[in-house]
Amino acid sequence: MARRRTPRKPRTSGITQRPFAELHNPLRPVELISADQVEAIHHASLRVLRDIGLKVDSAVARQLLGDIGANVDADSHIVRFDPAQIEEMITGIPSEFTIHARNPAKTVTVGGNSLTFATVCGPSFVSDLDRGRRAGTLQDMQDFVKLSASLNVFHHEGGAGCEPLELPPETRHLDMMLAQTTLCDKGWQPCWMNTAERARDCIEMARIALQVSEDELRQRPGILGGINTNSPLLLDDGQAEAMIEFARAGQPVHITPFTLAGAMAPATVGGALVQQNAEALAGVVLGQAACRGAPVFYGHFTSNVDMKTGSPAFGTPEYAQSVMVSGQMARRYGLPIRSSNTTGAACVDAQAAYESDMSINACIQGHINVMMHAGGWLEGGLTCSFEKLILDAELLQLQSALLDPIDLSDAAIGLDAMAEAGPGGHFFGTAHTLERYEDAFYSPILSDWRNFETWQDDGARTATQRANGIWKQLLRDYEKPPIDPGVEEELEAYVAKRKREIRPGS
Amino acid sequence: MARRRTPRKPRTSGITQRPFAELHNPLRPVELISADQVEAIHHASLRVLRDIGLKVDSAVARQLLGDIGANVDADSHIVRFDPAQIEEMITGIPSEFTIHARNPAKTVTVGGNSLTFATVCGPSFVSDLDRGRRAGTLQDMQDFVKLSASLNVFHHEGGAGCEPLELPPETRHLDMMLAQTTLCDKGWQPCWMNTAERARDCIEMARIALQVSEDELRQRPGILGGINTNSPLLLDDGQAEAMIEFARAGQPVHITPFTLAGAMAPATVGGALVQQNAEALAGVVLGQAACRGAPVFYGHFTSNVDMKTGSPAFGTPEYAQSVMVSGQMARRYGLPIRSSNTTGAACVDAQAAYESDMSINACIQGHINVMMHAGGWLEGGLTCSFEKLILDAELLQLQSALLDPIDLSDAAIGLDAMAEAGPGGHFFGTAHTLERYEDAFYSPILSDWRNFETWQDDGARTATQRANGIWKQLLRDYEKPPIDPGVEEELEAYVAKRKREIRPGS
Repeated sequence: MARRRTPRKPRTSGITQRPFAELHNPLRPVELISADQVEAIHHASLRVLRDIGLKVDSAVARQLLGDIGANVDADSHIVRFDPAQIEEMITGIPSEFTIHARNPAKTVTVGGNSLTFATVCGPSFVSDLDRGRRAGTLQDMQDFVKLSASLNVFHHEGGAGCEPLELPPETRHLDMMLAQTTLCDKGWQPCWMNTAERARDCIEMARIALQVSEDELRQRPGILGGINTNSPLLLDDGQAEAMIEFARAGQPVHITPFTLAGAMAPATVGGALVQQNAEALAGVVLGQAACRGAPVFYGHFTSNVDMKTGSPAFGTPEYAQSVMVSGQMARRYGLPIRSSNTTGAACVDAQAAYESDMSINACIQGHINVMMHAGGWLEGGLTCSFEKLILDAELLQLQSALLDPIDLSDAAIGLDAMAEAGPGGHFFGTAHTLERYEDAFYSPILSDWRNFETWQDDGARTATQRANGIWKQLLRDYEKPPIDPGVEEELEAYVAKRKREIRPGS
Repeated sequence: MARRRTPRKPRTSGITQRPFAELHNPLRPVELISADQVEAIHHASLRVLRDIGLKVDSAVARQLLGDIGANVDADSHIVRFDPAQIEEMITGIPSEFTIHARNPAKTVTVGGNSLTFATVCGPSFVSDLDRGRRAGTLQDMQDFVKLSASLNVFHHEGGAGCEPLELPPETRHLDMMLAQTTLCDKGWQPCWMNTAERARDCIEMARIALQVSEDELRQRPGILGGINTNSPLLLDDGQAEAMIEFARAGQPVHITPFTLAGAMAPATVGGALVQQNAEALAGVVLGQAACRGAPVFYGHFTSNVDMKTGSPAFGTPEYAQSVMVSGQMARRYGLPIRSSNTTGAACVDAQAAYESDMSINACIQGHINVMMHAGGWLEGGLTCSFEKLILDAELLQLQSALLDPIDLSDAAIGLDAMAEAGPGGHFFGTAHTLERYEDAFYSPILSDWRNFETWQDDGARTATQRANGIWKQLLRDYEKPPIDPGVEEELEAYVAKRKREIRPGS
């Protein structure tokens, strides 16, 4: 339910949106499996960690896990866990945290029944109807961040859209975070969490953006990070150490197993969920070993591969089931949870819409706190699409509006209007309607409800073609959110300094 | 949850589908409003019927309502109801009924947590990618009925798709029902419920198709009908009398108010729901006045008009809210409920997908027993689309699969497979995967998960373009379900006789 509901304001372009607002789901979460089944998954995953164990590439991480009593095999780097030790380590973790945005009006709290939508991160490709699918560039990345800033339904800039592939990979993360911190005033999530050094850059740029000390940042987190395991049962050194940095700095971080059933996990939803749970728990334990009480939380990405083609399938029944069960697991541990808005579609068509909608519905019904890739993800996450971003904004706005309370006051019901219209009459002209005319119903970003002839005469454009016009209009209308010039200079100086350090010869 | 789950069988075309199966939703229905609010809607609607009343055009219906003590104004034809009388009349109505299909394997029970999906009825236009949007013809109607028969996810032939506009309107219903009863062996729902005479034709053709007596048909219903009110608060004579015929023949019939908020109902969801409830209750009371204990049930169609264009809006947050609250109202009365899969989109694009998906999700979460227009509805119901039928089949199959139980047996979880794959390994070759290879995951009708390059090399077809190929393939593969030649002759003879009676000169 939107906490703050104010009238919709048209932007200068005439593109109407609901206002930015924290979102809470007032409905009870769907419980797809029984409490006993939740315990069965929990105990099976403890057996995995006891009997098979997790391979941990990072010596730092192995040391931390050894220190808390895990069984570390020095040769194989496999770490095995005593179930009682896991049970003990997963207590006392915050069930809620706040990500402070540069604009305090865009600060959001994560946990309980809160829903946070973040734009896509990770794709190397970018696409739009005009230029097709191509390698991402700095310009595309900056445009995507601007659109993330402009679309109210997204609570977080989720990772700067596409990679700017023309820039050096060693320092690309700095350019992306500079865009995120200066072109957008929302909370943000970094894309590059694959070394301790890059994680420290994330944290430092959050500190600068918010103009706080390290201690203050620890008390009032300013960035939300996440890592993946290399499923099955492998945690690479860079991701482990990035997570350790986040935990020590008090910045929320999720551990998200990459459990595609049939390839990186057993070819069943149940098996993949057990393995996901095992890997997530091991990651949470590592985070706690690094800093007890740090806001480390539960990540979901479980889907399956299509056994015919080997391609990952997203937005499927198995995906939706695994989202909702993962929500149950996270609640069992009292942890917030992330998942994603996914599709395997190759273009922005009906399939992209229904797979994303399936994902979004599962996330909302399952009380997923952080929906990553909520806007712009296409083609299994390989491509960041501008038209998909607009489509997703509509899908998410629709779901947000669905959670609005229904006004059942006498004034809203309007028995007087029914008497005024009378049997066989109409309501267009009743006082009740005239009072509510402008703001009575959901106002779409993308949907076109004009009659067929009008729609046809206006070019017979599909939703995807209309989305193309909308993102371009939003870019034309974009106004950079206010930022203290001193803060911007400090961020730029940090990026310049780090580029010199990382690539001294360049 | 699918009661019977058998392996998917590819059709000769290679188009794989889940088998025909009754569907039950094992999850608890979403309660969008409180029990107190449900009572508030109930009592407000009783006040509407007491103070404003319903205009009833039919003298037969007014007589029946007068006989049970309603206050009938002889001049205005407005009927007002004592709340206690309504409370008394809405008891003792069946909360569940069975529609017996010509093929007993396709008989379904309606009520409780059952979900029945029926194809579209009502459109005058038909469309496909090859021929565009055009007036419906006999050939289109027959093709649509064949596809309804071929797509397992649809439980009922819902109304023969489009009108065959080249045929005389007086006898068109006979041609449509002949197609429904002979080209399809599923349960069916007639499109033309606007006179008592046509209703009797429906019932008689159901009786012939099932080869039962009138009394046997009453005990084992063979057709599911429905009428609309002419909102606000008007019941026309033809629909009222058609409903009376159904009630007297013991055939299930729903009363569905046409409450588009802002035009035919107050410009609020709450007001439209109260008015819908009032009109539905009045209709149910009339059905009980005609035949106490007849299976008369609750209909939902409430949506809103777009106040900017005056066009109806479908698949919106308001629509979804009204679906779920209507489910609550029907459960309060212990009645089955119908709703619809709707969209206002003008073509089969992402909007058509997400609006339909929003509708379908609301229906499933709200435990809507009969989803009318579940396949093929486009453009606010003006057009029956062949590509939309395929899209809807996929959307419904996805939702059906989501309700499958998750196997959490030890065998399914496969700790042995995790040990076999080991950290960093893969599951493709494990015994666990090989055992499950063919039937492990959801197999789509329409979705394409191939990688971008393969998809592009194969023509870069959107889901809508692929749907075009699928319905044509299904038509090529169509095999007429077995029918006793004598039964078919009897149906044809009835149609011929009635045509001579209705249009004696032709």
